This record gives sequence, C-alpha cells and structure tokens, in this order.
Amino acid sequence: MPAAETQLPTRDRILFTSAELFRRQGYAGTGLKQITAQAPAPFGSLYHFWPGGKEELAAEVIRTGGDFFLALYRAIIDAAPDLLTGVGDFFTGAGETVAATDYQDACPIATVAGEIASTHEPLRAASADVFELWLGALTEDLVTAEVPRARARELSLSILALLEGAFLLCRTLRSTEPMTAAGAAAVALLTPDLEADA
Amino acid sequence: MPAAETQLPTRDRILFTSAELFRRQGYAGTGLKQITAQAPAPFGSLYHFWPGGKEELAAEVIRTGGDFFLALYRAIIDAAPDLLTGVGDFFTGAGETVAATDYQDACPIATVAGEIASTHEPLRAASADVFELWLGALTEDLVTAEVPRARARELSLSILALLEGAFLLCRTLRSTEPMTAAGAAAVALLTPDLEADA
Repeated sequence: MPAAETQLPTRDRILFTSAELFRRQGYAGTGLKQITAQAPAPFGSLYHFWPGGKEELAAEVIRTGGDFFLALYRAIIDAAPDLLTGVGDFFTGAGETVAATDYQDACPIATVAGEIASTHEPLRAASADVFELWLGALTEDLVTAEVPRARARELSLSILALLEGAFLLCRTLRSTEPMTAAGAAAVALLTPDLEADA
Repeated sequence: MPAAETQLPTRDRILFTSAELFRRQGYAGTGLKQITAQAPAPFGSLYHFWPGGKEELAAEVIRTGGDFFLALYRAIIDAAPDLLTGVGDFFTGAGETVAATDYQDACPIATVAGEIASTHEPLRAASADVFELWLGALTEDLVTAEVPRARARELSLSILALLEGAFLLCRTLRSTEPMTAAGAAAVALLTPDLEADA
C-alpha cells in the first residue's frame, strides 16, 4: 500500500484495503486477517467499526465503490465535449486502468457481485443498488440528450453490460482488446439515438 | 440433484456437482467436502480422479462448461434460419435459463473466471481458452457470412461482452431486463455487417 494511504485513519485504511482485496480475489477468498494485516490495523478494530463483520464491511465496500465509480463517470462525461465522446472516453480510460494494474483492477464491485449473487442476499442487494445508481446516471444523461426514457434505459443496460463483460474478458485474456471492441460497440449503439438529436 | 443424475458414474457426479456449485457460489466459497457430500461420493474419490485436487477439478469444470456452452451455441445457431436470428435466439434462451433457475445459472465459467483471474493462473488460462473457443466459433460464423475477419473478431468480442455483462446484471438485479436489452443490442450491432452480405 502506498505510504500516503498509510496516513489515513484506521477505518479508511481497512476500507481501502478491503476494496482492493475483494475486487482482486473475491469475497470468500479474502480473509479478515489478511485485510487487517495488510491495512495495517489491529484485528479487533474491524469489528469495532463493522460489528456485523465481513458482510457489513463488504456491503460498505460495494456502496463506496459504487459512489467512486459514479464520480469518475461524472468527471469523464463532464470533461468531454458531448455525451457520445464522453462514453467513448470512459471505455478508453477503463482499458488503460485495467492494463496499468496488470489486469487486476477493473469494476470495483463485479468480482464480488458475481460471486455472491446467489449466496449473500444483503451483498446482492447492495450490488443491485450500485448497478441501478450507474444505470440511472447514464439514463438521465441520455434523457437530457433527448433520448426517450424507455430507450435511454435500454441503451444504458446495454452499455453497462458491454463494460462489465469487457472487464471480465480483459482480466481473463490479459488484453485490452475486448475493451477497445466494447467501447467501439458502445459508441456505435448510441450514435443513431444521439445523432438524431444533433 | 435429480435422481437420473445420481445414476451417473462417480466421476461424472463429482464433475456435475462441482460445476453447479462453482458457477453459483464461486471457487473459494465451494469446499471439497460440500462437493463430495452433495454428489454424493466418497471424499477420497475426488483425489483419486483429480490428484491435483480442487484446482485440477476446477480446470476440468471450466473446460467441460466451455464445451457444453459451445455445443449449445452450435445447436441454437444451426436451428435458426440465419446467423442474426440465431444470435438473437441465443440471448433469448440465456434470459429464459437465468430466470428459470431463479437467477442462479448463467455463464458456466464467469463466476469462477472473475474471481480467480488475478490469483489462480492455471484457472485463468483455462478460462481464457474457453472464451477464445467461443470467440472463435462466432468469428468463424461471421466470416462464413462474409464479414471481414478483423471485423468479425471485433464483433465477436462485443457480443460476448454483452452476454457476460448481461448475465452479471441479470443475476444481480434478479431480472431478465438486461438480457433483453443486450440481445437487442447484439442484433443491432450485427445487422449492418450481416445485411451488407444479404
């Protein structure tokens, strides 16, 4: 962990370390002792901050990751000249991040979401809230660009599916080729609806 | 487990049970004792058939799942009047399967692939082989439909990303809405290239 991050309060150190371990090696594969050893933090501090233990901690990691990714999306879209360019930029940035972290860091919640969907209902619900948060943001941006709401929802689902599928393929194939293809597909899918408005 | 499957040889019972547990609850979350208890099979038989233990078993589960899904793809495409219809049918069938299994059964390898990509190199390599197997099948079908090879590869990556992303979203949101949207997007993406040939 970078030195700057070790200056953080104990609670934040545990949260950041958990986020990294969960997204890289999943929920069941990450032990609480590994988290507190790597944070570093006294083992007891974890239960002090999250009396519900691992599941309560993971739910907060999912929600925090959701807010972080939404802020990243907002920043990239707002910096782009238009929504279509912004979505393309987001996919480009996603590919760069996956490659820069040696194919370890992709979606902040997908590794855990895929693993616990059938087994840990509170974590599935938290993951669903995060996906809906992201879908809502893109849907609203499309509605603002005068795409009808039902169509905006359908397009948002497809764009998020492309992104999540590409993250999985990039990590597994150890290549950014899937993200490049998915980004081009996202732009191709959005173009007719956004150009109709232009 | 259905009665018919308990008539299977021990090795197959272990393999089928492992496949179900791995895709529903992941690799780290599935214990060998749970597998042999549910198969059912003597605990020692697992190491008899897979001396390398859990990782060797999981690698075979991944490859077997890959072959099964490829055969399913082949059957659906061959039953359709054309490739575009067949791809649409595949997404429709995927949505029906996810819903029919109460959002538990989706891609046979994705749950494990996402979990182990950064931690179990032999399983990541097996997952990559399976994704390439599927990508190769769709790419060849597109080339047969006179789509240029580089474009066929790019389209195949996007279609598989849509499918995998939609599986994750369906399981998490407990809805087939993402698969419906992804299927429509897949058909929309393929249409210009396949209609150019018609």
